[in-house]
Amino acid sequence: MQTVIIGSGNVAYHLAKAFIQNRIEIHQIFGRNEIELSKISKELAIPYSTENLAEADLYIIAVSDSAVENVSEFIKNDNALVAHTSGSLPKEILKGHYRKASFYPLQTFSKTKKLDYSKIPFFIEADDQIDEKLLFEIASVISDSVEISTYEKRKYIHLTAVFACNFVNHLFARAKEICDSQALDFNYFLPLINETVEKISHIDPKSAQTGPAVRGDERVLKLHEELLKNEEQLQIYKTMNESIKKMYQ
Amino acid sequence: MQTVIIGSGNVAYHLAKAFIQNRIEIHQIFGRNEIELSKISKELAIPYSTENLAEADLYIIAVSDSAVENVSEFIKNDNALVAHTSGSLPKEILKGHYRKASFYPLQTFSKTKKLDYSKIPFFIEADDQIDEKLLFEIASVISDSVEISTYEKRKYIHLTAVFACNFVNHLFARAKEICDSQALDFNYFLPLINETVEKISHIDPKSAQTGPAVRGDERVLKLHEELLKNEEQLQIYKTMNESIKKMYQ
Repeated sequence: MQTVIIGSGNVAYHLAKAFIQNRIEIHQIFGRNEIELSKISKELAIPYSTENLAEADLYIIAVSDSAVENVSEFIKNDNALVAHTSGSLPKEILKGHYRKASFYPLQTFSKTKKLDYSKIPFFIEADDQIDEKLLFEIASVISDSVEISTYEKRKYIHLTAVFACNFVNHLFARAKEICDSQALDFNYFLPLINETVEKISHIDPKSAQTGPAVRGDERVLKLHEELLKNEEQLQIYKTMNESIKKMYQ
Repeated sequence: MQTVIIGSGNVAYHLAKAFIQNRIEIHQIFGRNEIELSKISKELAIPYSTENLAEADLYIIAVSDSAVENVSEFIKNDNALVAHTSGSLPKEILKGHYRKASFYPLQTFSKTKKLDYSKIPFFIEADDQIDEKLLFEIASVISDSVEISTYEKRKYIHLTAVFACNFVNHLFARAKEICDSQALDFNYFLPLINETVEKISHIDPKSAQTGPAVRGDERVLKLHEELLKNEEQLQIYKTMNESIKKMYQ
């Protein structure tokens, strides 16, 4: 089976690497960004092109959500199976006469950061069971955690991921901003952050809650609000504490 | 030197355990909650009392912020050194004629969860350098990370910890709430959460940001807002995304 990956961003890079590491051949990596493509091509020994999309049996479109539809129109092979990697798009966004699918890896990807692909949950959806089985088998070569999923389910998985990953990272960014403003070393907080995460593998996060809001410690809440000089920090502080109070009242 | 720990909650328990594990003798653990005290006493082989506070050279008050002042009045030994463990109280909250100090461990404590005490940063403050040195040395037996700190600095450390730990945990609790509402398995998200945290040991969290808000993906933001039926979830969603947009605009 000939496989082409379309895209040169974080997801495309890591998928290509996961395929190659697991000896799944990639026929071509295709995209617009020649600098990134040539880097990936060199590292993983995959042919690339910015102009001539190769003939293939399977195309995996790993580009940003807003580009998926446009990119899908380049594929003219009606016998192909085409899957996108988005958490928030239906497979029907793909515009062509080929078979359509979704191949969604639930992870946060940065090019500079190595990943253990075997632990990434993959969520698969296709037009028929034969294609679902095919994609399921490919994902299973890479990962120990593969599931068939509907678009409805996938949307909620992506939404949950925004809370558990994107917003969590933003809290770290705002926490570091406070540290920097006081010349505090952010490394002080790494054991605390590790423990916060370590805990929820053992304890329901709702039961693990600590801090002034869940204790109803209004003195500390007021003190902290006075310390915060940045409008966004203050807004987060108030919103999160209100939400904590509501959850435990 | 005779040491007494006052309190029977999470911090008191873990401090007592850290002392005992490092062969620092504890003369007594004192508090109101006999059930908790007797459990700690039994596990760690420390005498306890709910009525007769023992004579000691060092008292460590590990009770909730709102109780510190009251509890500090029980100590009548003017030759003692008394330290509280709060991140948000000045040492002057302690009411007595003894020497005053702060002994602040930066960690989130749950009784049911084992901890590596050697990695907990301790922040020390006392009335004079002799007491600072004494508390520094005690903390250094337990931990590899001990610093002298002012109240001003400690307040900001605690505030940062609220963002990096308490709010992060609350995001996990809200994420799990969304999962539960859709019968999704929260375990799907543990590799993502681990990677989110793993990343920031290598990359500045500001550079590690991913997700719809930093990409300016208004379609996904709108889609997610429609999926959220709970007022607090929606408020968090909007506040966090606004803050992300402001940080990267």
